[in-house]
Amino acid sequence: MENFNFCIGTNIVFGKDEIAQLPALVKPFGCKVLLTYGGGSIKRIGLYDRVKELLSDCEVYELSGIAPNPKLESVEAGAKICKEHGIDVIVAVGGGSVIDCSKGIAAAALYDGEPWDIINRKAEITQALPIIAVPTMAATGSEMDAGAVVSNPATKEKVSFFSPHILPKASILDPTYTFTVSAYQTASGCADILSHLWEQYFVAKSTFMSDMLVESVIKTIIHYAPIALAEPENYEARAQLLWGSNIADNATLCNGNGLCVFGVHAMEHELSAYYDIAHGVGLAILTPHWMRYVLKKSPETVTARFAHYGRAVWGLEDADETALAQKAIQATDDFLHSLNIPMTLKEVGIGEEHFKEMAAHCVATEQTAYSWVPLDENDVESIFKMCL
Amino acid sequence: MENFNFCIGTNIVFGKDEIAQLPALVKPFGCKVLLTYGGGSIKRIGLYDRVKELLSDCEVYELSGIAPNPKLESVEAGAKICKEHGIDVIVAVGGGSVIDCSKGIAAAALYDGEPWDIINRKAEITQALPIIAVPTMAATGSEMDAGAVVSNPATKEKVSFFSPHILPKASILDPTYTFTVSAYQTASGCADILSHLWEQYFVAKSTFMSDMLVESVIKTIIHYAPIALAEPENYEARAQLLWGSNIADNATLCNGNGLCVFGVHAMEHELSAYYDIAHGVGLAILTPHWMRYVLKKSPETVTARFAHYGRAVWGLEDADETALAQKAIQATDDFLHSLNIPMTLKEVGIGEEHFKEMAAHCVATEQTAYSWVPLDENDVESIFKMCL
Repeated sequence: MENFNFCIGTNIVFGKDEIAQLPALVKPFGCKVLLTYGGGSIKRIGLYDRVKELLSDCEVYELSGIAPNPKLESVEAGAKICKEHGIDVIVAVGGGSVIDCSKGIAAAALYDGEPWDIINRKAEITQALPIIAVPTMAATGSEMDAGAVVSNPATKEKVSFFSPHILPKASILDPTYTFTVSAYQTASGCADILSHLWEQYFVAKSTFMSDMLVESVIKTIIHYAPIALAEPENYEARAQLLWGSNIADNATLCNGNGLCVFGVHAMEHELSAYYDIAHGVGLAILTPHWMRYVLKKSPETVTARFAHYGRAVWGLEDADETALAQKAIQATDDFLHSLNIPMTLKEVGIGEEHFKEMAAHCVATEQTAYSWVPLDENDVESIFKMCL
Repeated sequence: MENFNFCIGTNIVFGKDEIAQLPALVKPFGCKVLLTYGGGSIKRIGLYDRVKELLSDCEVYELSGIAPNPKLESVEAGAKICKEHGIDVIVAVGGGSVIDCSKGIAAAALYDGEPWDIINRKAEITQALPIIAVPTMAATGSEMDAGAVVSNPATKEKVSFFSPHILPKASILDPTYTFTVSAYQTASGCADILSHLWEQYFVAKSTFMSDMLVESVIKTIIHYAPIALAEPENYEARAQLLWGSNIADNATLCNGNGLCVFGVHAMEHELSAYYDIAHGVGLAILTPHWMRYVLKKSPETVTARFAHYGRAVWGLEDADETALAQKAIQATDDFLHSLNIPMTLKEVGIGEEHFKEMAAHCVATEQTAYSWVPLDENDVESIFKMCL
C-alpha cells in the first residue's frame, strides 16, 4: 500500500428535492452570486427558474453558453464578471463542463494575470472563489473533485489542472435532474465513469481492498447503465449512476494504489481537443483497442490483470489466462457497443490526418511513458489507427 | 436510494513516516497544544518522543492516562487544561478511546456548562477546538468520523455523541504504529471494524452498490486479520486494516442506505458500560447470537439477507435459503472464534445479575425498537443469556 493524502470535504447533499438547501449553502459565502450554466436544458427542466427563485435574496449575475469541452473564452468571460462585480460565490448548474469551467473561473477571478496561465499550470492556484455545484449529469464527478479540464481551441490544447482550492464547497445532487439526459449523453457519461474506474484499476500496483471497491462500482455502472437507457426516469438507476460517478472520480476507492498515467485518458484528450467530440465517446472508442494493443505489446504486464478483471467483473472463466484476458476485453467491447454510441473514429468524423501530431503531442504533454504500459508515439498512433 | 448528507473533510495523511507532517498540520491552528494519550504504549514505540520533538516549537500541555472506554473524568480534566491555558489545538495520539475522549474535550473546552451535558446530548455542540489525530490502532475509525463515545462510571452510562465540529481536521495514519498492538487488541479491533460493516449491511434498505462496497471491506478484514495476527509487522496487512477501519466507519460505503439502529452495537454499550470490557470483544460475543436470534424471530425479514451475505462474503451455497443463512452465521461465528478472543460472557467475567436492568436501559436509551429487527427488553435479555 502506497502512502497517500486524501481530503475531500465537499458537503454532499444528495437526493430528490434537496435543491431547497441551496440558499443555506450559499449564504455563508456572501450574496453576490455568479450563476453558470450551459445551454437551455436547465431551463427546459425548470431547474433554472427554481434556482433563481431560491437565490431571490442574492444579487445574481449569469454566465450561460458554457460548451462541452469548455473553452478558455468562457473562463475569461466568467472571471471578468467576477472581478467587475466582486462576486462572492459561484453556483455551477450543469454537466461536468459547466463545473470544470466554473473551477477555472473561480481561480482566475482571484488571479491577476491571464486565465490561461492558471489552466496551463504556469501559475499556481493559491486561492479561488467558493463553488457550489448542482450537477445535471452522471459523468465526470467534477462536483466532488479538485480537478478540471479546459480547452484552448486556438492552440488545440485540452489541459487538466488541479488544486484543493477549486474543490466545490458543497454539491447538491438530485438524480431527477438527470432524467432528461439523452440516451447518447447518458451512455457517454457511463463510459466516462467506467474510464475513471479502469484508470484506478489498470495500474502497476493496487491493493486487495481497492481492487474489490473498484470492481464494485464497475459492476454497479454495468448493471444500471442499461436500466437508465431503457427507463430514463428510473430513480434508483439514475441515483446509483450519479453517486457512482462521484466516488469513481476522487480517489475514495483507490487510496493506497500506485497510480500512473492512464493512456486512454491521455489519448482521448487529443481527440476532443482536435475534434471536440464527447469525452465519454472518445474513451469508449479507445478503450477496447488500447486493451488489445497492450495485451499484445506487454503480455507479461497485463495478461494476469485482464484475466483477473474478467473473472471479478464479468464472471468469466478460462483455464488459459491469455484466452481469459481476451474474453474480458471482448466483454468490455460488447458492453460499450451495447450502449449504442459510436465505437469507431470514422463514425464521429475523425480521419487519420492529424494522428502523427496528436500522438507526438499526447506523448509529450501527457507523459504516457509513465503509463502502466508505457506508450511512445508509435504506440499511440497505432492505437488511433486501430480505432478508425 | 435514500437522500443523504455526506461531508468528511478530514485531511488524511496515510503511510509510513508521514508523522513528519505533524508540525505543518498543527501550525495553522496555533501554538498551544494539548497532547492527549493513554498509557505507556506510545512511549514504548518511540512515538511520544517523536511527537514531542516535532512539536518542540509549540507550547505543549499533556493529558495522559486516558483509559479504554474513556471516562467522563478524563474529558473534564482535559477541558480544564484547555480553559486554563487557552489551548489552540488538540493532538490525540492513541487508540479510539484517546481520540473519542479528545472529541469530548474539544467540545467541552468551548462550552460553559458541565462536560457531561455535551456528551449526554443535553447541550448542542456549536463549536470545538480543532483536533489532529494520530491513531495507533485499527478499530473505531474515530480519526475520520464525527462521533465519539464516553462512559460515565457513576451512572453506568456509555453515551455516543456526534457533531461536525468534532471531526478531526487532520489525521496521520502510519500503519507501523500498529505493529506492536497485542494479538488480543488486534483481534478486538478487527471485530469492531467488522461490526461497523455489519451495521451498514444488516439494514432494511440498502443499495446495489453499497452492498458490494461493504462486502469488499468485510472480505478485506477477513483476509488480513489472520495475517496481522500471524505476522504483526506485516505492513500491507496493518495498512489495509487501518485504512479499512476508516472507510468502514464514516458512511463512505453506505451513503444512500436506509440506516437504522444496530441492535448489536446497542447491546454492547450496556456490556462495556457495566463491565468495562473491550468494545470489540463484546461485539464479537454478541454478533453470532444476535444473528441466530433474529433468524428465529423474524425469518421473513432476515433469511434472504443472511443468505445473500453467505454467498457474497463467504462464498457459500445451499439450495435452501434458511440453511444458507445458518451456514453464513456459522461462518461468522467460526471466523470470530479463529481470532482467539473470548466468545462467551463468562470468559470476560459477566454473569446474568444485571441483564434485566441492562436490557431495560438498552431498549430505552438506544431505541432498539428501531432496529432492522425491532428488539424489546425480552429480546435483549434473551440474547444476553445466549451469550453466557
